[in-house]
Amino acid sequence: MGDEKEKKKTQDIMCATYQALSRHGYADLSIQRIADEFDKGKSVIYHHFDDKEDLMLSFLEHLIDEMEEDMHGSSEMAPEEELDDFLDKALCIDDKEMWDLRKALMEMRLQAPYNKRFAERFRKIDEFLLDKLAEILEDNGVENPCETGDMVLSIIEGLTYRKMTTHDLVDLSDARERIKKRIGIE
Amino acid sequence: MGDEKEKKKTQDIMCATYQALSRHGYADLSIQRIADEFDKGKSVIYHHFDDKEDLMLSFLEHLIDEMEEDMHGSSEMAPEEELDDFLDKALCIDDKEMWDLRKALMEMRLQAPYNKRFAERFRKIDEFLLDKLAEILEDNGVENPCETGDMVLSIIEGLTYRKMTTHDLVDLSDARERIKKRIGIE
Repeated sequence: MGDEKEKKKTQDIMCATYQALSRHGYADLSIQRIADEFDKGKSVIYHHFDDKEDLMLSFLEHLIDEMEEDMHGSSEMAPEEELDDFLDKALCIDDKEMWDLRKALMEMRLQAPYNKRFAERFRKIDEFLLDKLAEILEDNGVENPCETGDMVLSIIEGLTYRKMTTHDLVDLSDARERIKKRIGIE
Repeated sequence: MGDEKEKKKTQDIMCATYQALSRHGYADLSIQRIADEFDKGKSVIYHHFDDKEDLMLSFLEHLIDEMEEDMHGSSEMAPEEELDDFLDKALCIDDKEMWDLRKALMEMRLQAPYNKRFAERFRKIDEFLLDKLAEILEDNGVENPCETGDMVLSIIEGLTYRKMTTHDLVDLSDARERIKKRIGIE
């Protein structure tokens, strides 16, 4: 019972972190701002986490779990539908909150060259996405699914990164179809 | 004569900024650290620039000028040689100092969602690179050179970004050939 309660509390902290990151970005994030997003005080957070970095590392693990769960749910889709679903989510199509989170995650990723523990988590996320994407591409009959998946992931990251940092020079609205055309699925 | 001297001084400050950025990254950059890279004191820098942001904006303009000059020099190459040259430079192949600068520029780019003046400069850099790349692709007989160039630029940014933030999960050594294969040049 105590364990269940603790689990619920950690879950609430993760939700609050998600909200606070989407709202403030990473650089301006503080434990106080996370506490503002839920009804318990800062002390509850400090009871579970040493500092902002410790909390962020757990948050990244939490994201990996969420992705795994989410992708598991999509495995009953038809192959092309599953690919569309993957690309839409990765490109944050029509999802403002997800887009804001992506922006914050991008900021966090740029700490990775100077923070080994962050780099390890982002490597794990990339490896997970690569495996999943290669599987989906194989189901869609794409040749060299691993190499193609690596390129598609780079296109997705490059497109979102360029869009975010050039005041929308890049248009993502037809990016999904452009990517599919490039890999021979039309 | 006075103008020449001023120009030389600004040029020296730009060189020092390049060195300091490659060495310390963007977040840890300070006017002091830039001054450490050349033999004049901080006051010379403050005579020319209001603050770090003002200096960085000029540095980005300076980079654009350098790129233009550099690309102008490469326009006497054969088409495929020019493409190789573009891709090698963009991927910082065998250029440790350029790679460190790329890392710092990536940090700066992530300020762009919160800093309109940075975003404008990076947009200008992207537009310049896109124009140049489309021209090179057209010379190489690639179909839809603008759209293909946009994709190639995203692959380059995505690959370098992923490599930097995952402790080298991505291998860039054969990236040039993989990109050329993707766009039908082998």
